[in-house]
Amino acid sequence: MTVAVKSRVEEQAIEAKKAAKTLAILSTEEKNQVLHVLADTLEEKFETILSANHKDLQAGREKGYEEAFMDRLALTKERVYDFAKGLREVAELEDPTGDVLSNWTLDNGLDVKQVRVPLGVIGMIYEARPNVTVDATGLALKSGNAIVLKGGSSAINSNKAIVDVMHEALEDTKIPKQAVQFIASTDRAATQELFTMKEHIDVLIPRGGGSLINAVVNNATVPVLETGVGNCHIYVDVDADVEKALNILVNAKTDRPAVCNAAETLIVHKNWLAKHKDALIETLKQNNIAVHGDEEAVRVIPGAVLADEDDWANEYLSLDIAVKVVDSVEAAIAHIDQYGTKHSEAIVTEDAQAVTTFMNLVDAAALYHNASTRFTDGGALGFGAEIGISTQKLHARGPMGLPALTTIKYIMSGNGQVR
Amino acid sequence: MTVAVKSRVEEQAIEAKKAAKTLAILSTEEKNQVLHVLADTLEEKFETILSANHKDLQAGREKGYEEAFMDRLALTKERVYDFAKGLREVAELEDPTGDVLSNWTLDNGLDVKQVRVPLGVIGMIYEARPNVTVDATGLALKSGNAIVLKGGSSAINSNKAIVDVMHEALEDTKIPKQAVQFIASTDRAATQELFTMKEHIDVLIPRGGGSLINAVVNNATVPVLETGVGNCHIYVDVDADVEKALNILVNAKTDRPAVCNAAETLIVHKNWLAKHKDALIETLKQNNIAVHGDEEAVRVIPGAVLADEDDWANEYLSLDIAVKVVDSVEAAIAHIDQYGTKHSEAIVTEDAQAVTTFMNLVDAAALYHNASTRFTDGGALGFGAEIGISTQKLHARGPMGLPALTTIKYIMSGNGQVR
Repeated sequence: MTVAVKSRVEEQAIEAKKAAKTLAILSTEEKNQVLHVLADTLEEKFETILSANHKDLQAGREKGYEEAFMDRLALTKERVYDFAKGLREVAELEDPTGDVLSNWTLDNGLDVKQVRVPLGVIGMIYEARPNVTVDATGLALKSGNAIVLKGGSSAINSNKAIVDVMHEALEDTKIPKQAVQFIASTDRAATQELFTMKEHIDVLIPRGGGSLINAVVNNATVPVLETGVGNCHIYVDVDADVEKALNILVNAKTDRPAVCNAAETLIVHKNWLAKHKDALIETLKQNNIAVHGDEEAVRVIPGAVLADEDDWANEYLSLDIAVKVVDSVEAAIAHIDQYGTKHSEAIVTEDAQAVTTFMNLVDAAALYHNASTRFTDGGALGFGAEIGISTQKLHARGPMGLPALTTIKYIMSGNGQVR
Repeated sequence: MTVAVKSRVEEQAIEAKKAAKTLAILSTEEKNQVLHVLADTLEEKFETILSANHKDLQAGREKGYEEAFMDRLALTKERVYDFAKGLREVAELEDPTGDVLSNWTLDNGLDVKQVRVPLGVIGMIYEARPNVTVDATGLALKSGNAIVLKGGSSAINSNKAIVDVMHEALEDTKIPKQAVQFIASTDRAATQELFTMKEHIDVLIPRGGGSLINAVVNNATVPVLETGVGNCHIYVDVDADVEKALNILVNAKTDRPAVCNAAETLIVHKNWLAKHKDALIETLKQNNIAVHGDEEAVRVIPGAVLADEDDWANEYLSLDIAVKVVDSVEAAIAHIDQYGTKHSEAIVTEDAQAVTTFMNLVDAAALYHNASTRFTDGGALGFGAEIGISTQKLHARGPMGLPALTTIKYIMSGNGQVR
C-alpha cells in the first residue's frame, strides 16, 4: 500500500511517530541526560530566544494586545533560565515508564505482566505562553513520548526559536530531533488537521481558554485530555467559622485571579450571611472585590450589581465575584452541578454532615473542606511539574504529572499455551 | 435558568444522572443485594423474556438474517439463567469505589486523599446480543454508575422485556429504577443524540462491529471507551518451534473464529516457511483454514488466493486467514503497525532478542510470546466479567473490569489552609 501523505503537518506527525519508537526504549538515565543538554543549550542561546521574542512583542504592541497578555508573552534572561531549571526538575522526577504495575501467572503457566509504557505521540495545542513549549517538551520526552507542538500565533517567533535551539541541542543526543515537532504554520487548518490524525497522534492536550478547549473537544477524533477551565465555587455553609471563611474567600479570589483554580463564585448560606454580613462586606471592600449577586446578595451587599447567566457560567479571571445566596448545602450543590466545570470546589463549615454530603455529591476533580481551591496544582500537591489540570473523568483527573502521559501494555510470556 | 429538554432521550439521560447520585453513596452490600434481586427476578420471569425474544426471532427470520446472527439473538431458559448467574458473579467481585488510592499530608497540614469514585452515567451502545443488556447493567450498578442502554433494533423486544423485568425488580430496592434507562426508539437519531450529551453522560461504550464503533468514535463529543475490533496477527519467526507455532496458529484461528481475539493474519519468516512448509500446509488443510496470501505465500501454499488490501486490513471472523511472508521481525512489526488494531499480537520464537524487539516496538493492548492471542479476555486473565476490551490507550487498555468504570476525586480536608 502506498500511504498518501496529505500535508507537511501529516509528515511531521509521521516523523514524530517514528521517533517515538526510538524514544520508547531509552533508559531513564539517557532521557535525563538529554533534558540536561536541553537545559544547558537554552541557557547558552538565551539571546537568540530573546531576539525572536522581541519580534513577537513588537507585533503584539502593533496589534494592541492588552498588558496582561503582553506580560505572559514577554521573555527575559531570567525566564529562559527558569525554563532550563524546569527541565532539570523534570529530570529529577521519577520515570513512570517500564514500571511493572502487576504480574501474575495463570494456572496454565502463562506469565502476565501489566507494564507502564509511553502513550507515543502527544499533540499539544496551546495559546500565548512560550514556557509551554519547553515544559511540555520536557514532560513528553521524560515519559518517552514524542511531541507535536502547535502554539499560538502571537508567540510564533519565540516558540520557533525555542524549538530551533532544542533541535540543535538534540543533534548530539540519543533522542532524534524528530521527536519534537513544531507546526510553524499559523493557519487554523493546520491545527484542525491535528484533530483527526488518529493514525499518528495518540492524544491531544489543549491548553488555553475555553474556546480553544471547546474547539478541540468538539472536533477531535483523536482522544483528548481536557484541561483547565475552572469555574470554581466557595460555599460558605450556615456553620462556617467566619475567620476561615473570609481567609479562604480572599485567598481563592485574590491570590492569583487569572488562574484556573481561583474562585469565581461565592455561594453563601442565608443565615450565615445575615449573621456575618458586616464582616463579609468589609472584607470584600478591603480587597477590591466587585460583587455580581443574585437579588438577595444585591439587597444585602452595598454596590453589588445584579448577576446574569454569564456571571454564573463563566470565569472572571479578575477581582470580580458572583454571589449566590442559598438556604441549604443541597441548594449549593445544585448550583455547582449546573454551573461548575468539575475543577475545584470548596465548602467552609464546621458541620461534619454537610461535609459528607458535599464530598459525596459534588462532581469535581478536587473538593476542599475548609481550605482554598488554590491548592489544585501539581506543584502545590507535590506531583512536580504538570502538563495541565484535567477536568475530565477518563484517564486522568486533576493535576496531571508524568503518569498521565503513559498507558499500559499486557506482556504475556508462554511456552506454547493455547485456550 | 430554565433548562430546555430537547427530547425523551435527553429526559432519560437527566433521570439517569439524578439516579447516579443516589447510587454513588450506596454501600457495597446494598448494591450486591440489588444484584441478587435482579438475578432472582430474571429467573422468575424468564417466560416473559422468552416470549418477547420470540417476536425478535420471528422478525429476524422474516428479514432473512443469517444463522450465526440468529443464534446470538436467540434466548432459552438456560441463557436467561446464565444472565442471572452472571449478575451473581458480579456481586462477588470486589467493589473498586470508595478505595483510597493514596493519602498524604502537605507541610501546612492539609490532608489529601485520592479516592476512587463511580464515573456517573454510562452510555452503552451495542448490537444484537441481549446478554449485554444484563451484563452491562450489572457492572454499571456494581461500580455505582447509572446506565443508558441503546441496543440493536433486531433485539428491541428482548431488550425491552429484560429491562422491564429489571425495572420491576428495582421497585423494592435502594437503587431507583431511573438508574437503568433503555432507549426504546429504534431511530438512528436517538443514538446520535447520545453522542453529544456531555452534560448528562460521562462515557460512551460502543460494543459491536467496526462500523458501529467508528460511528461512535468519529461523532461523539462524549468521551468514548473504544472496544473490540481485533485484527490480530501471529508472527512465526525464523527461530520458532514448529509444534508451538502450529498449535498456537490453530488455536488462535479456529477456537472461536468470530471473536475479537482470534487471529486474522499469519506473518511468517521466509526461512521458517521454507523449512516447515509441509507441516504448515498440512495443518491449514486439516483445519479447513482458507489462505489469502501475498505472492510468496500463494507460490508456496496450494490453493491460496492472492490477498488484497481488505484481507490485510479487516477481520475475517471466519476460518479464513491472510498470510504474509517477511524476512525479519522488523518487517513483521512494520506490517502490524500498518494494519493492526492495537488489540492482541503474538510472536512465536525461541530467540530472546526477537522477543525484546517485538515487545518494545509493537503497539497493542496485549502482546504474546509463544502463546495464543485468545487469552485477551477478562475471564481468561482472572479479572471476572468485562464490559469490553479496550483498544484505545487512554483510561483503560485491554479487558475492562469494574475499575474501568470509575474515576478519582481528590478530597482535601483542612482547617483554614490558604496559599
